[in-house]
Amino acid sequence: MDWRGSVARQGAAFGARHGVSADWEVFADAWRARYQPAMETVRSGAREWVNLDVLHRESLAAIAPEFGLSALPPSALDDLNLAWHRLDPWPDAVSGLTRLRSRFTVATLSNGGVALLVNMAKRAGIVWDRILGAEVVRAYKPLPGAYLGAARLLGLAPGQCLMVAAHNSDLVAAAACGFRTAFVTRPIEYGPNQTSDLAPGEGVDISVCDFHELADALGCG
Amino acid sequence: MDWRGSVARQGAAFGARHGVSADWEVFADAWRARYQPAMETVRSGAREWVNLDVLHRESLAAIAPEFGLSALPPSALDDLNLAWHRLDPWPDAVSGLTRLRSRFTVATLSNGGVALLVNMAKRAGIVWDRILGAEVVRAYKPLPGAYLGAARLLGLAPGQCLMVAAHNSDLVAAAACGFRTAFVTRPIEYGPNQTSDLAPGEGVDISVCDFHELADALGCG
Repeated sequence: MDWRGSVARQGAAFGARHGVSADWEVFADAWRARYQPAMETVRSGAREWVNLDVLHRESLAAIAPEFGLSALPPSALDDLNLAWHRLDPWPDAVSGLTRLRSRFTVATLSNGGVALLVNMAKRAGIVWDRILGAEVVRAYKPLPGAYLGAARLLGLAPGQCLMVAAHNSDLVAAAACGFRTAFVTRPIEYGPNQTSDLAPGEGVDISVCDFHELADALGCG
Repeated sequence: MDWRGSVARQGAAFGARHGVSADWEVFADAWRARYQPAMETVRSGAREWVNLDVLHRESLAAIAPEFGLSALPPSALDDLNLAWHRLDPWPDAVSGLTRLRSRFTVATLSNGGVALLVNMAKRAGIVWDRILGAEVVRAYKPLPGAYLGAARLLGLAPGQCLMVAAHNSDLVAAAACGFRTAFVTRPIEYGPNQTSDLAPGEGVDISVCDFHELADALGCG
């Protein structure tokens, strides 16, 4: 999903409705910058399990002053928080996933919560065989439990699973659990000046530019 | 899903392959008769959580002598156990669910395990917005945690959820958790001489004969 573009677009629309002007790409980046530190408070055991909606909402409250959002009612920020439920897919995603599903069981393995993923898929027209991820097993990636719990719920050995991601750190963690790995380049995911994850790391099994290339590589019609 | 007909058909094919003759409808009934008692050992806390595949396999081992299956290798019975992953849908199910999905988020709330439900949906061509159920929350219906856990994972209050079932006991338990309820009559689910669940119990919100009637009642196109 194009989270950065989607959050920036929704921020701009939100700002227009509420009379707030800001650089909404910078806003998206600032919100996302708190993603890993927020999850780390849970991963480390410093706090009890909360899903990503809770973490996103706390992060939004933290950056609100910087973007002129502090004076808005909490219910408005609650709605803005759901921007992460309304991300747009990359152009190849829906049709590519349909091809992949013709031959394989295709599931999410996301740090997003269940409601987030269900709402996102419904809106985007993505069909999953199964939505899995952190909330189901109460472990945020890259903790091993996130990967191993997903395989277990599918009744599969890790070596029967292919982890597909645009983030090498995700693939490294999956491979350490015994998954096979596919890297999909998303060169502007972090904006036009992206410097990381432009190429696959060592040891990746498959590297492609989009889901259609992946479907080709896996012999899907 | 037509579990009885599906299990009986697969039993007959299995028997033909392995040279075992039996009344496979009686076999399906005998296997199913152990379903609630097996789950009860988990619900009661007498044993640790195991998913339905494990319970089905134990029940199959228990009835094997009665149906001439004892001499077969365990791997053959392992395969027969997967009959529950290969149930056929009722004729209205796939097209009816498609209509329901056009307006609502449609999820399973089954005692079947995740792999069972994923494999069944994939084979039958059923698309779910989300597969939920006992294994995800580690609580078998009719325990309240099964219903409340599903609503929580969807980010919904119980009153925003409609439980759809052919079993009144399931609807009674869901209603006690605050769900709205819809009864779908499946008059031959338990065979031609079915005596229970032929009509909705008291307090059911909607009662229909199939998923298309349900889609009509809920204003789906």
